[in-house]
Amino acid sequence: MKYWNSRLRNTEEYLPGEQPGNIDEFIKLNTNENPFPPSKAVLEALRGACDESLRRYPDPLSREVREIFASQNDLSPENVFIGNGSDEIFTLILRGLVEQDGLAAFPYPSYALYYTLAQVNGIAYDRVPLRADFTYDMGAFLNKKYNLVIVANPNNPTGTWCEIGDIESFLKKFKGLLVVDEAYVDFYNNTAIGLVKKYDNIIVTRSFSKSYSLAGLRIGVAAAHPDIIRGLMIIKDSYNVNRLSLAGARAALLDQKSFRSSLQMVVSNKEYLEERLAGMGFTVVPSQANFVFVRHPQVQSEELYRKLKENKILVRYYKGPVQGDYVRISVGTMMEIKALCKTLESVL
Amino acid sequence: MKYWNSRLRNTEEYLPGEQPGNIDEFIKLNTNENPFPPSKAVLEALRGACDESLRRYPDPLSREVREIFASQNDLSPENVFIGNGSDEIFTLILRGLVEQDGLAAFPYPSYALYYTLAQVNGIAYDRVPLRADFTYDMGAFLNKKYNLVIVANPNNPTGTWCEIGDIESFLKKFKGLLVVDEAYVDFYNNTAIGLVKKYDNIIVTRSFSKSYSLAGLRIGVAAAHPDIIRGLMIIKDSYNVNRLSLAGARAALLDQKSFRSSLQMVVSNKEYLEERLAGMGFTVVPSQANFVFVRHPQVQSEELYRKLKENKILVRYYKGPVQGDYVRISVGTMMEIKALCKTLESVL
Repeated sequence: MKYWNSRLRNTEEYLPGEQPGNIDEFIKLNTNENPFPPSKAVLEALRGACDESLRRYPDPLSREVREIFASQNDLSPENVFIGNGSDEIFTLILRGLVEQDGLAAFPYPSYALYYTLAQVNGIAYDRVPLRADFTYDMGAFLNKKYNLVIVANPNNPTGTWCEIGDIESFLKKFKGLLVVDEAYVDFYNNTAIGLVKKYDNIIVTRSFSKSYSLAGLRIGVAAAHPDIIRGLMIIKDSYNVNRLSLAGARAALLDQKSFRSSLQMVVSNKEYLEERLAGMGFTVVPSQANFVFVRHPQVQSEELYRKLKENKILVRYYKGPVQGDYVRISVGTMMEIKALCKTLESVL
Repeated sequence: MKYWNSRLRNTEEYLPGEQPGNIDEFIKLNTNENPFPPSKAVLEALRGACDESLRRYPDPLSREVREIFASQNDLSPENVFIGNGSDEIFTLILRGLVEQDGLAAFPYPSYALYYTLAQVNGIAYDRVPLRADFTYDMGAFLNKKYNLVIVANPNNPTGTWCEIGDIESFLKKFKGLLVVDEAYVDFYNNTAIGLVKKYDNIIVTRSFSKSYSLAGLRIGVAAAHPDIIRGLMIIKDSYNVNRLSLAGARAALLDQKSFRSSLQMVVSNKEYLEERLAGMGFTVVPSQANFVFVRHPQVQSEELYRKLKENKILVRYYKGPVQGDYVRISVGTMMEIKALCKTLESVL
């Protein structure tokens, strides 16, 4: 590690959900992927884009996708940034919008990548605990002079959420930059994106990985004041989103009908999963996302995770205080949910 | 720009080659794209990968592509990193492998993105001039204690090159980290990648944008000591390369026959272009890349660029000392080269 800089040496590695080599033998409920395929229109558009034009660079400004997203969300294209997944957007925010001596705050438990990114970029941060029921205490983010606050809404891994009115009340008092990570918002159907035109210190991010079933394409969106978007444009890699991702994003945004019907299925499967788990005695944290955060009074969560894995079912287990008491289970197809419940019944 | 940090405010924006909205009306010789399409096998593999599996995240470790690249280059997969274009790899190197108080050195003229990345990351750097004939003076990179040196080989925008023996002699004396940017190496056919197993302070980068005709897919490779690769893995975004790029990279590496024949055509077109330009009185800098760096004794280069653009031909013009005296012209198809030469004859 002779050539690592001091920040890299001090960075705890973020571990994405496991993907064993023999992944196809598993029921994979550990990374919140959508159990339903991308829409036919998206797959057709992608196949059509696999042509001679791939020898060309993509549009460095992602103009067409920004225009479509803007028009669908009552924004202007200057409010919109397209990233190589929303992870790239978080990276850019930490690199370009926080001073080295700044202080950031992220909820806990939440998406662990926030902490990693702050470490990589040498930025100090606090982990601000959620309330005991995992709801947001936005007031806690006003206790110090934070330069950056990121809240995931709905939150990952808990599935809990924050009302938009509470976010706006917070913005009225907050002087730093607020990022609302809306990776799961389509399952919640209650977005803060309307605040982008009213406040110059909010960035709302979206992902195509969950609700649009396109985790494999890496498409994220940020909506914010044009000044912020322009800053992100300067520090991004010149051609950050490839031609096929742009073609897929365009087709996905234009096919709202398939999108809505797939969402509806996920939400209804989630309700079924919650009922079944509650029936087996699980404590199920109320969720507005495509996953549930649960624990069982009789079985340690780490053991549950391990036993499910032995039975070729992957769920997500995080070590650490509070979150270590739970497992996170992504919503699958009905067949997957039934297989999971059957295994759980035999394990409990 | 209220929320920009001081580094971002001090960053000169890197401008990628222009892409006018009516790009299809132009002969585009300004961004060194390959004039020939990607291989049929690559396009077929890509179409085959446009399926239901896109709802899944890609392999965060790009294992399969790393294995293939390693086996083709007498390396182990632990020596190989796959990036979202080689631009991502340069970004990661500047972020993770140079201390904040470190000093970097880049040739001048060269790929302007190096300077921009150093600025974004708050790292001081020198621009070390090439010799008057645009060849490398590697000794000049030993004049100070540089922590990082990047050399493009062949160099962009000049097309000039450095012998591998000179790179190895340099490495024997150099204590910092050397990056050899081999984006254009396949046209030169003389690589430093064999030094990766001998020295722990060299990173060789490759791009699929030029020789593999896949600029639209964004695929870059870094080869280095496993410690360095592990460091890059920690700071990259979890899923930095999407599923389709991985499928395309795999197919491209496996179809070496089409690759070699396309390379041969580019090299032979380059020789034709050089002859024609020399015949019109241009000074043509010797080039081992898929572009030529030229000037004409009777016409200012900026004017030449402008007149070609009026005639719907895009070439690259860079302002600035020395490089401002030249234009860079990418090698096109025979038809494009003939159209270019005809226009030049009427313009001169």
